[in-house]
Amino acid sequence: MQYHVNGDLVPEDEATVSVRDRGFMYGDAAFETLRVYGGDPFEWDAHRERLAHTAGTLGFADAVPDDLRERVAETLAANDLTEAYCKVSVSRGVQPGTLDPQPEVDPTVVVITKPLPRGGRDGERVWDGPATVQTVRTRRVPGEAVPADIKSHNYLNGILGRLELRRSAGDGGPADECLLRDIDGNVAEGATSNVFFVTENGLRTPSADLDLLPGVTRDVVLDLARDEGFPVETGAYSLDALRNADEAFLTNSTWEIRPVETVDGIDVGAGPMTKLLQRLYDERVETLHY
Amino acid sequence: MQYHVNGDLVPEDEATVSVRDRGFMYGDAAFETLRVYGGDPFEWDAHRERLAHTAGTLGFADAVPDDLRERVAETLAANDLTEAYCKVSVSRGVQPGTLDPQPEVDPTVVVITKPLPRGGRDGERVWDGPATVQTVRTRRVPGEAVPADIKSHNYLNGILGRLELRRSAGDGGPADECLLRDIDGNVAEGATSNVFFVTENGLRTPSADLDLLPGVTRDVVLDLARDEGFPVETGAYSLDALRNADEAFLTNSTWEIRPVETVDGIDVGAGPMTKLLQRLYDERVETLHY
Repeated sequence: MQYHVNGDLVPEDEATVSVRDRGFMYGDAAFETLRVYGGDPFEWDAHRERLAHTAGTLGFADAVPDDLRERVAETLAANDLTEAYCKVSVSRGVQPGTLDPQPEVDPTVVVITKPLPRGGRDGERVWDGPATVQTVRTRRVPGEAVPADIKSHNYLNGILGRLELRRSAGDGGPADECLLRDIDGNVAEGATSNVFFVTENGLRTPSADLDLLPGVTRDVVLDLARDEGFPVETGAYSLDALRNADEAFLTNSTWEIRPVETVDGIDVGAGPMTKLLQRLYDERVETLHY
Repeated sequence: MQYHVNGDLVPEDEATVSVRDRGFMYGDAAFETLRVYGGDPFEWDAHRERLAHTAGTLGFADAVPDDLRERVAETLAANDLTEAYCKVSVSRGVQPGTLDPQPEVDPTVVVITKPLPRGGRDGERVWDGPATVQTVRTRRVPGEAVPADIKSHNYLNGILGRLELRRSAGDGGPADECLLRDIDGNVAEGATSNVFFVTENGLRTPSADLDLLPGVTRDVVLDLARDEGFPVETGAYSLDALRNADEAFLTNSTWEIRPVETVDGIDVGAGPMTKLLQRLYDERVETLHY
């Protein structure tokens, strides 16, 4: 595998950053995780916009290179990939001094790809089956401390949630995803996914006004549901609302739409709304990327 | 300058980590910043213990190498340093998969040093003068989201605080340190320092029960004050309590004890307690490291 580092394609084992890179020292970097179908990044504009938003919030808006999409294309071509996972990172790079961020930025820009077969209507999903979801004690970092709508290399919050799963795992192994509540106890999101559920009144997902990262896939799903005229509501929801739902599913770029089997051991499961949205999602991918 | 990476001394420009190192991707790493006096790390045991605590909290307690102090000594010797700044990092390294932390850890261990002349009674301090301190909107990440007593590579909270200083800077340039309050509005700490203040009733510093990282230097100062029989109180304090103090100062390993000139533009300044504690601190350093 070859990666793209600061404008050059390099073999995987030579793809490195300085130990003084602020991405390594402080997680001082922005990233996006993309799905590539038929050689094209899905929802590129949305991912690029959020990357720019994260970098801007961190004060290095200009560090996102204009030719980022070309770098992604070069990395895919070098690895002969058309169906792939792709991660793009932009860090503040190496700077003099210690913690203080300096206005002069020589960023570190990294593109990583790996093969990821397309699932879709005729293929196999990347996940093994519906997700088991477990609520954890770790709460979502509130936006007053770190803005919730940026996607940065500060990812310990989610890692601590996943560690809780491992530490509390029974014979069946750890749950597939941890569910983080905000400081007030509302359902926020998974470590790497947004959560949706279905009631007799329609589709529900925690509001982007809460402390969560509104994913690109979340936006696509909301868009598909509204296009179909489904009642959609975003708001603040309790754990009980989710546990008592008729259906629930998780979304992210890699999983796309993954049904939830159980929440805290309580059966929730998939149903017609989840299946229809999966179908609509697959159709959108096929329409755009064949 | 030579750095120590995974057991080897390497030239600074060859000191790198993989772009897939979890320290880079997620800030999934523990670190300590140390001061070296006369060739010896100051308060080594306390720093090592906290590093182990951070690594343990993150689930890779065994990753801290037994010979860490030797690696520090080798790095100092290779760079011919006896008075120095030293940073030690242990990351979870490269693992298969994406976010999920795996139990098998091949850690990345980095030691960085740079010259830092001893201040002390006869020398010059590393800081230019008393610190200007500015309260920022960014709040300290609460312990419910990420335990406050770990020192990890997730440092955006403090960086965002420092960015606020730069963005709001007047003609005099940014303040020297940002003051972070906890979610409830209590004074917590600076981005890289603990805060102390003095009232007619004695020495005060926010309690370690609040969301803050209780620094090694903070512990030394509390110890010195108690040894002298000074009244010491730790608790939850408002901004006003700090602004109205007779004296205030910041502590960290690099700054040692740095007087606070102003808080939010309000004069606070040094005084006899600050000066006496500086003298006692210098004496402790000299006693242990000459």
